[in-house]
Amino acid sequence: MYGPIRYVLAGRGKRIRSVLLLLSCGAVGGNPLSALDAAAAIEMLHSFTLVHDDVMDHAELRRGRPTVHRKWDPNIALLAGDELIALAYRSLLRTAGSSSHQVARVFTDAFVQVCEGQGFDKEFELRTNVSLGEYMSMVRKKTGGIIAAAARIGALIGGGTRRETDALYKFGEYLGLAFQIRDDLLDITGDPADLGKAVGSDVVERKKTYLFLKALEMSAPRDRASLVTLLGGNGRAVRRINTMREIYRRSGALEAAEREIRRTTGRAERSLAAIGAGRGKDMLLWLSRRLLRRDS
Amino acid sequence: MYGPIRYVLAGRGKRIRSVLLLLSCGAVGGNPLSALDAAAAIEMLHSFTLVHDDVMDHAELRRGRPTVHRKWDPNIALLAGDELIALAYRSLLRTAGSSSHQVARVFTDAFVQVCEGQGFDKEFELRTNVSLGEYMSMVRKKTGGIIAAAARIGALIGGGTRRETDALYKFGEYLGLAFQIRDDLLDITGDPADLGKAVGSDVVERKKTYLFLKALEMSAPRDRASLVTLLGGNGRAVRRINTMREIYRRSGALEAAEREIRRTTGRAERSLAAIGAGRGKDMLLWLSRRLLRRDS
Repeated sequence: MYGPIRYVLAGRGKRIRSVLLLLSCGAVGGNPLSALDAAAAIEMLHSFTLVHDDVMDHAELRRGRPTVHRKWDPNIALLAGDELIALAYRSLLRTAGSSSHQVARVFTDAFVQVCEGQGFDKEFELRTNVSLGEYMSMVRKKTGGIIAAAARIGALIGGGTRRETDALYKFGEYLGLAFQIRDDLLDITGDPADLGKAVGSDVVERKKTYLFLKALEMSAPRDRASLVTLLGGNGRAVRRINTMREIYRRSGALEAAEREIRRTTGRAERSLAAIGAGRGKDMLLWLSRRLLRRDS
Repeated sequence: MYGPIRYVLAGRGKRIRSVLLLLSCGAVGGNPLSALDAAAAIEMLHSFTLVHDDVMDHAELRRGRPTVHRKWDPNIALLAGDELIALAYRSLLRTAGSSSHQVARVFTDAFVQVCEGQGFDKEFELRTNVSLGEYMSMVRKKTGGIIAAAARIGALIGGGTRRETDALYKFGEYLGLAFQIRDDLLDITGDPADLGKAVGSDVVERKKTYLFLKALEMSAPRDRASLVTLLGGNGRAVRRINTMREIYRRSGALEAAEREIRRTTGRAERSLAAIGAGRGKDMLLWLSRRLLRRDS
C-alpha cells in the first residue's frame, strides 16, 4: 500500500502549501526547520484530497500521470488516501513546542472544511441554480482552508503574535481564492502539457466554475441558454469545450476572472501589513506574484 | 453531507471502544467525564473504518441497515468517511490536560495501523498462501489497534501510570483479537437477525478468516482442497457457505476458535494484574466476559 502513497507524494506538484507554511514561519521570525514536519503534513493532507477527489470526479490524469484509481484501482485509492491522512497527522504531531496543540486544531479545522467544501462541490454538480456567492464560499472551504491553515500553522510554529497569525491566515485565504480562479481559467485556456491533465475537465465533470457562473451573469440570454445546455449536454467534449471557451471570451468572463485574480491577490498582499518588512515578507510577496502569473 | 454521518453514528453499534475508553479512565482513578470527547472520537474513527471498508468489500448491510454507499452512493460514502475522521480529530483535540498530545499520538498510531491492517486484509483476498500467523498480525493491526488505543487513551486521560497504561493497552489488544475471532465465528454460525447482516459474507468476499486458515491446518487433504475451491468458487453462495461450515465443524476449527477466544480473553484479563482491585477493574472484567459470550 505504500507504493501508491510514494507515487502520489513523488508527483511533480507545486508544493505551494508547504512552501507557504515554511515562509510564514520565517516571516514571523521563526526557524523554518522547526516547521518541516508540519509542512510535510500539510502536503500529505492536500495529497489525500487529490486522491479521493480524483476518485469522485473520475479523473484520469493528475500532474501528468495516471491517477491512483486508474493506475491501481478505486479501493487502493480509497485506502491510500485514508493512510495519507493518518501519516499527515503522524508527521504533524512530531511538531514540538508550546503551539503544537493549537497547530493540530488549525490543521483539523482545515480538514473539516475541505471535506465540507468537497461536499458542496459535488452537490453543485447536480444543482442548476448555484450562485457566484455560493461558489466563492465553497472555494473558501475547499481550496482556501488548507492554504490559509498552512500560513497560520507556519506563523504559530514560528511564534508569531495573534495579529501576525491572523494576518497570515487572511493572506493564505485570499491567495487560495485567487489560486482557484486561476485553476478554473487554466482548465479551459491552459496547455495540457503544462497542466499535466486534459483541458476542459471541468466541463466534462459539469463543474460550475467561476468562469461558468460569471459568464452566466455577463452574457446575452442566448449565450446563457447555450452555456446551460453545453454544461449539461452529452455531445462531443472537445466541441462543447471550444464553444464554452468562446462564450467565456465574448461575454467578458475570461477578463473578469483575470481582474478578480489581480484584485484578490492585491487583498492578500495588503493583509501582510501586520508583518514587519524584511526578507521573510519579501518571499511571501514573491510567492503571491509567482502564483498570479502561473501557467500550470 | 451530515445526513449520512448522522445515519452512521445513530446505528445500533455496540460502542465497545468508547465504553472501554471510559472504563479504562475510571479504572486508573480518573473521571470518565473528562474522557467523553476522546470516547466520541474513537467511536467516529471506528465508524469511518466501517463506512470505507463496506465500500471496499461491497457490503450491503451493516447493523441491520443498508450501508452508506448502498443507501446513497460510493462518493457520498467516501466523503462521509473522510469527514468522520476530521470530526473525530476535532472531538479528540477538545480533550484537555497534560496528556492531550500523547493522546493524539496514540490515536494517530491506531489510525495508521487500521489502514495498514485493511491493506493486508484486502491483499490477503488475492493471495492463496496466507498463514495463520500473518492473519493474526493483520487482525492485531486492523481490529486490535483501535481497541488497544481506546484503553490506553482512557488510561492516559485518567492519569494512569506507565505500568497501568501499558497493561490496559495489552488488555485491549488481546480483547481485540478475541473480538475478531468471535466475529469470524459469528459470520458463519450466527443468526442474521442478531448480526444485522447476511451470514457468510466473509465467504462471499473470499476472506481468509481464522476459521478458514485453522480448518486448512486441521482438516484432511480432501477437505482442504474443497475449502480452497469453495472460497475461490463462484457457485451458489448459500451452498458454498453451508459446505464450508460443515468442514469447519468436522475439522474441529469451530471448537479451536472457541478455545482460542477463551485463551485470548484469559490473557486479556491477566494483563489487568497491574490495575488495582476495585469497581473500575471489575467493570473491565465484566466487559471482557460480556464480549466472550456475545452473539451479535
